[in-house]
Amino acid sequence: MVIVMERNAPQDQVESVVERISEIGAKAHPVIGEERTIIGVIGDERKFDEGMFRSLPGVENVMRILQPFKLVSREFKKEATTIKIGDVSYGAENKFLIAGPCSVENEEQIIQAAEGVKASGGNLFRGGAYKPRTNPYHFQGLGFEGLKLLQKAKQATGLPIVTEVVEAGDVELVEEYCDVFQIGTRNMQNYRLLKAVGKTQTPVLLKRGMSATLQEFLMCAEYIMAEGNHQVILCERGIRTFVEYTRNTLDLNIVPVIKKLSHLPIIVDPSHGTGRRDIVTAMGLAGIAAGADGLIVEVHPHPEKSVSDADQTLSFEAYAQLVKKVRKLESALA
Amino acid sequence: MVIVMERNAPQDQVESVVERISEIGAKAHPVIGEERTIIGVIGDERKFDEGMFRSLPGVENVMRILQPFKLVSREFKKEATTIKIGDVSYGAENKFLIAGPCSVENEEQIIQAAEGVKASGGNLFRGGAYKPRTNPYHFQGLGFEGLKLLQKAKQATGLPIVTEVVEAGDVELVEEYCDVFQIGTRNMQNYRLLKAVGKTQTPVLLKRGMSATLQEFLMCAEYIMAEGNHQVILCERGIRTFVEYTRNTLDLNIVPVIKKLSHLPIIVDPSHGTGRRDIVTAMGLAGIAAGADGLIVEVHPHPEKSVSDADQTLSFEAYAQLVKKVRKLESALA
Amino acid sequence: MVIVMERNAPQDQVESVVERISEIGAKAHPVIGEERTIIGVIGDERKFDEGMFRSLPGVENVMRILQPFKLVSREFKKEATTIKIGDVSYGAENKFLIAGPCSVENEEQIIQAAEGVKASGGNLFRGGAYKPRTNPYHFQGLGFEGLKLLQKAKQATGLPIVTEVVEAGDVELVEEYCDVFQIGTRNMQNYRLLKAVGKTQTPVLLKRGMSATLQEFLMCAEYIMAEGNHQVILCERGIRTFVEYTRNTLDLNIVPVIKKLSHLPIIVDPSHGTGRRDIVTAMGLAGIAAGADGLIVEVHPHPEKSVSDADQTLSFEAYAQLVKKVRKLESALA
Amino acid sequence: MVIVMERNAPQDQVESVVERISEIGAKAHPVIGEERTIIGVIGDERKFDEGMFRSLPGVENVMRILQPFKLVSREFKKEATTIKIGDVSYGAENKFLIAGPCSVENEEQIIQAAEGVKASGGNLFRGGAYKPRTNPYHFQGLGFEGLKLLQKAKQATGLPIVTEVVEAGDVELVEEYCDVFQIGTRNMQNYRLLKAVGKTQTPVLLKRGMSATLQEFLMCAEYIMAEGNHQVILCERGIRTFVEYTRNTLDLNIVPVIKKLSHLPIIVDPSHGTGRRDIVTAMGLAGIAAGADGLIVEVHPHPEKSVSDADQTLSFEAYAQLVKKVRKLESALA
Repeated sequence: MVIVMERNAPQDQVESVVERISEIGAKAHPVIGEERTIIGVIGDERKFDEGMFRSLPGVENVMRILQPFKLVSREFKKEATTIKIGDVSYGAENKFLIAGPCSVENEEQIIQAAEGVKASGGNLFRGGAYKPRTNPYHFQGLGFEGLKLLQKAKQATGLPIVTEVVEAGDVELVEEYCDVFQIGTRNMQNYRLLKAVGKTQTPVLLKRGMSATLQEFLMCAEYIMAEGNHQVILCERGIRTFVEYTRNTLDLNIVPVIKKLSHLPIIVDPSHGTGRRDIVTAMGLAGIAAGADGLIVEVHPHPEKSVSDADQTLSFEAYAQLVKKVRKLESALA
Repeated sequence: MVIVMERNAPQDQVESVVERISEIGAKAHPVIGEERTIIGVIGDERKFDEGMFRSLPGVENVMRILQPFKLVSREFKKEATTIKIGDVSYGAENKFLIAGPCSVENEEQIIQAAEGVKASGGNLFRGGAYKPRTNPYHFQGLGFEGLKLLQKAKQATGLPIVTEVVEAGDVELVEEYCDVFQIGTRNMQNYRLLKAVGKTQTPVLLKRGMSATLQEFLMCAEYIMAEGNHQVILCERGIRTFVEYTRNTLDLNIVPVIKKLSHLPIIVDPSHGTGRRDIVTAMGLAGIAAGADGLIVEVHPHPEKSVSDADQTLSFEAYAQLVKKVRKLESALA
Repeated sequence: MVIVMERNAPQDQVESVVERISEIGAKAHPVIGEERTIIGVIGDERKFDEGMFRSLPGVENVMRILQPFKLVSREFKKEATTIKIGDVSYGAENKFLIAGPCSVENEEQIIQAAEGVKASGGNLFRGGAYKPRTNPYHFQGLGFEGLKLLQKAKQATGLPIVTEVVEAGDVELVEEYCDVFQIGTRNMQNYRLLKAVGKTQTPVLLKRGMSATLQEFLMCAEYIMAEGNHQVILCERGIRTFVEYTRNTLDLNIVPVIKKLSHLPIIVDPSHGTGRRDIVTAMGLAGIAAGADGLIVEVHPHPEKSVSDADQTLSFEAYAQLVKKVRKLESALA
Repeated sequence: MVIVMERNAPQDQVESVVERISEIGAKAHPVIGEERTIIGVIGDERKFDEGMFRSLPGVENVMRILQPFKLVSREFKKEATTIKIGDVSYGAENKFLIAGPCSVENEEQIIQAAEGVKASGGNLFRGGAYKPRTNPYHFQGLGFEGLKLLQKAKQATGLPIVTEVVEAGDVELVEEYCDVFQIGTRNMQNYRLLKAVGKTQTPVLLKRGMSATLQEFLMCAEYIMAEGNHQVILCERGIRTFVEYTRNTLDLNIVPVIKKLSHLPIIVDPSHGTGRRDIVTAMGLAGIAAGADGLIVEVHPHPEKSVSDADQTLSFEAYAQLVKKVRKLESALA
């Protein structure tokens, strides 16, 4: 940590900052410049809040040097993490190709959807039983019934199930019916929920919050890992910007940055990330080219009849085309 | 709702949209323009998802006409809502002057803080027992112990208590110890939690999510009201933008807009909204001038020793000054 | 400047950074920490580009300590700057109350507008002769004819004229007809234009760019001052964010921050800043409460007939009310 | 255009809107709904400002149906535009591979750079003679001398020259020394400059403004085309968001959207778009996968000695690798 003193901060202010630094068990290294004194702080800066220093008299600015995350970082673990689901490992070498409808609607729809995903080349099946909807008067998901239908889809196709859990109290129940927990964008910072899934050994797909910084995103993965569950898959799903032609702004830049900073796999959700069916394929391919370890895509047997997210959902034909192109891209870039 | 067809969309595409509209019980009014056909949809558009139409062939765009909220709207209730806490009503005529430390730390601190708030002119006391922190290794609040200390602060001063609840499962317990539930920015869209507080009759202070649109914000209030609890206080606390000189961008523009669209009271949090102690007073006053029904401000007996948010916390002296200026402003603008 | 080396950066990388630092005439102070070496750089960091260091092997991050601006800063000049226009000084003590129509349309309109502004309590008159429009097929302003009509409005009322200049080549001509140059938001970083007005002694109203950071904004004022013209008025006019209920997000937070960092006056434009007539008054008052040195507001004899910006324009009655409230606020906060 | 009236707007307000619509030569089609009356407006809505209607009594909202651009749209011209530079046509089939240093520094550097670009597989050479810098005290480019050195680089390699023009008054001079004008992000809405390059027949590379919407971006291309120059290349170069790990947020989503809406070619600038050399290659490839017609990349014989933008500049080796991968990607996706 580096503490920058105000121009002409008197000596006693510098000294009281130095004192405060030693109070918390760190060492101070003042450097007296032409215009400002700066104080280098040696010690584990993850342990202290920079606000503590920022509020001292004479302090102009406090700058962190270290990222606050540990377990998620490449410094902690050099090799890329692969995620084991059933008997299969997924990651850079065997990409996550997750697809399925936004919501579980009924038995016929969900089994047809799972079969379509399998036939198109997907290797994991998603579907929502608990749906966080912005409108309280809209369909909120089938709940427990939905979980049971997902189970049937798994039996019919063998595809492992990815489904959202929305509250700590539901974790135990949902775990029985899924292979991967999904934490949705609105719950990225629901720390109780993160801790609850962190106490299981089931893999967790963690979606980036709509306005999460890189650090906030990785700290949420850190919450899960700190409880003992190291099977975390990160997912970029679009951020909120001023842009008006996509529902969110899919931020692919985070993909290569995360590959550098963290050993965790990261996948891309071009469906929610754009909200536009007509560019899902282009942006999914771009995600792979940027280095993502997989894609999660909304597909539906009859996209235009989907009860939610109809406008960003692919047909099986379109999804099969996308998978084919992903495979070509992988060979080209190998 | 208005559906805009693509240029030269063939007649059968127009017809199949019209058909879909009647299937859901609404009426279609096509208007044939020089370049495009547009279809006015008459019916309760709150009941249907626009994505449903956006995915039909030939549809270029779907525009909603109505805001999706009902109970929170001025159309539903003309008079401004006041909130009864104990025997006192708060709102435009008697502003919410909520203050207190970020976290409950210990008995001495919290009682001193409550006494300081009262002496400075505050009328409600806040303090966090459950703290959602971005860093899993930082102090997470005293939990249940914190609630009991808040109770003592209330006994000592008579100030009603505002405190955060972070999970549906905690609502019953927290309700025993507080007069107003606070829903934090990260939980604005935790719909389970919204429903749980909606089932009580205790007032709810709902903080805007960091990247919430007006509609998302008001729909969260609608979630609470739809369960039967109409005692909702909205709170602007800063949004996430590109700006680098404040921790968040306090968006006062929403204040007069909400006063127009909704009957609910709205207050402003200049502490989190800016993250800078040196501009809290200026922005608090600006909030009142913009028409807010009150302020929520972080104060601490020893700001520089606060375990969290030290850099945005006012001293009692500074808070007393702020309250005095708020009162002057109120008279000037009356 | 502080240079942060990568974890375990070998000694020779540290040394070659130190060497590079002395090559450019600065001094290096390495501080060896537990996890990282950081290097304090003593010297005038305004002279060197941080990218130069960021690209050296082993460098993880480079952090500036000093703001890059000089002439605009409070450190350079302690007392608040007042701007002399004609015989009158404007600033904190005598606020800028600039008003007028978006565009000069014709003689009758512009003289009526100036008379209305004067009668309502405004002290400076604005009107656009050169209009940068997003649509090439829309009205682009009367140009030179407009300047002459502004002159007539000045003769009729005695109000000094504020008008936009859009190109370096026009500066000489526009200067003859105006008392204050306005640099619009789209031209904030038109450095040729900034240098050209910087070579005159006519005051400059510099509008913040739609996505300008504080530093970029102040550096543009620095461009003008560096050429010799120290008469600069800053203007917050709304930034671009995800927010959908206002055309721009008026960012009042910058007002008290700038008052602290710079001696230059700053005013607020609630008309462009919100794009909504119904909240212009509330946000104008909020601007004054936040500490602004004045307001610039769009008014028109017949707002609904204005050829541009009709939806954010006040009538004379509304403007007179606003001025009256500004005066009350000033007394209350004095 | 659709005009939405307020709930219970009285009949005479509806009528006066209808009247206003016919005054401007359009036709009104009122649709009376359960809660609101909406009025469809038939006529060329490009000709009128929506603010005009928004300010009428009883009007709640005005929604445009048509995009305001004409010449740039796919509706106007179905086939993708190719750009002829010298004897070669560039576009989807023959991608723009533009590379070169940020600034022209001296003869040796610029010739070495051009030779390196050619050897690496680039087909157009860029270099800045006029540099808009945020800091008035930093290097501002060699100006006219720089143009002459670019000419030498062309003679040495045969690569056509892309260089920035910053003011209308410079267009004639710069045109003599370049094959493609570059309009920088800060000048995207410098309409005088757009008109000036629009009057030539030299191709124009138009960079997106840092916070430009799709519509604003395309309207700037429309400005150029409206003057007669139809040789416009669009360029995505990153937008301003809250994101902190990249200098800008490269927004690849705009690429497939523009390919749909416009016939103009669009290329991607991963250097400025990210500001990080370590992810330029990944994001350049992602741009191609998203459907871009080419890349513009900063390269330098000695990246770490570059006088500007050192931290986002590739070496020749890295650039040659990128070009090789682009070619593989093109085959894979063909």
